[in-house]
Amino acid sequence: MYSKNIPKIIIARLPIYLETLEMMHKEGIRKTSSKELGNRLGITAAQIRKDLSQFGEFGKQGTGYPIDTLICELKGILNLNHVWDVAVIGAGRLGLAIAQYPEFIHRGFHITLIFDNDPELINTRVGDLTIQDSTHLVEIIKKSNIKIAMLTVPASSAQKVAEELVKAGVQAILSYAPVTLNLPTDSVQVLHIDPVKQLQQMTFFLD
Amino acid sequence: MYSKNIPKIIIARLPIYLETLEMMHKEGIRKTSSKELGNRLGITAAQIRKDLSQFGEFGKQGTGYPIDTLICELKGILNLNHVWDVAVIGAGRLGLAIAQYPEFIHRGFHITLIFDNDPELINTRVGDLTIQDSTHLVEIIKKSNIKIAMLTVPASSAQKVAEELVKAGVQAILSYAPVTLNLPTDSVQVLHIDPVKQLQQMTFFLD
Repeated sequence: MYSKNIPKIIIARLPIYLETLEMMHKEGIRKTSSKELGNRLGITAAQIRKDLSQFGEFGKQGTGYPIDTLICELKGILNLNHVWDVAVIGAGRLGLAIAQYPEFIHRGFHITLIFDNDPELINTRVGDLTIQDSTHLVEIIKKSNIKIAMLTVPASSAQKVAEELVKAGVQAILSYAPVTLNLPTDSVQVLHIDPVKQLQQMTFFLD
Repeated sequence: MYSKNIPKIIIARLPIYLETLEMMHKEGIRKTSSKELGNRLGITAAQIRKDLSQFGEFGKQGTGYPIDTLICELKGILNLNHVWDVAVIGAGRLGLAIAQYPEFIHRGFHITLIFDNDPELINTRVGDLTIQDSTHLVEIIKKSNIKIAMLTVPASSAQKVAEELVKAGVQAILSYAPVTLNLPTDSVQVLHIDPVKQLQQMTFFLD
């Protein structure tokens, strides 16, 4: 168990390291250095060494990292050694696209529940799933012991649904709703995906 | 015109400031301080003052910022004073969800083109758009003078399509494909949306 006080900005880089190492492994590379990894990522070798040093000793000075060991260690640090069940709340276009996106299960996240409040959608099928009535969200998620949810409901209902998720024991919410969620930070992690904000930071650089 | 050498991490915070200011304005608030803004965002007042100082003088020491002026200035800095046309490449589930997501046009991005290479999709309609054949992507985008594209093609074709976008004069790519794109950084901005990486950084904090 690692300290939960490690800066989030460092934790946020670990999945990027993991992805790159897995790609290198697929390419048949067996060892790497913080310099080589840094070159691929556009991050300094010193930064990578400093990030990893938060979690103990990896590899030996001068001999580099064995990639398979480092992948395994990073997965352990990130709690990715088992598949996580995930609930999707909101079966609109985006929710349906997410529920059927194969990348989640390929990388350790199994979408096992999807909810909506639209009577026309409830009890219809999406791939292997049946859309559940979000009226029963709290009890169903509690019973299933799911800790992770993706939120694809409209902005106007996001806060209310997020509070229900916390009540149901969810500890991590990835929200696609374009609003800030006001939740107890000690019991739940929240991250947002907002493509408009990403476009807005790129337009700065456009002519 | 502002220096393009301002750190990207600062530019990335500007859309967040903008969103919060717009929300405050909607709430009827007319003036704010870096302290109040910081409280809403969980960022220090010093950081906000330092970020804004990169772009000149805003407000007077001690009297706070008039919100409407600050919104206007931020929009100017981010080049958001006009609507940007955007092309979506890939009309799978995610591409279709994006093409019909109202938040883009509400916040200044107008999706005017959508492409796919699937003969069954080409020439079918999505809202007001007709799916175009991606074989003609370069010439169509060039002619339309579009500078921004969202990439929702499979990982295996993302690099090839991204290179075509650069050839077509696109200067900003928001990619949903779970691969690193290798493109000339002097001619194109690239950002990625990868929900799996965001889930992976939250699982660190889960029990």
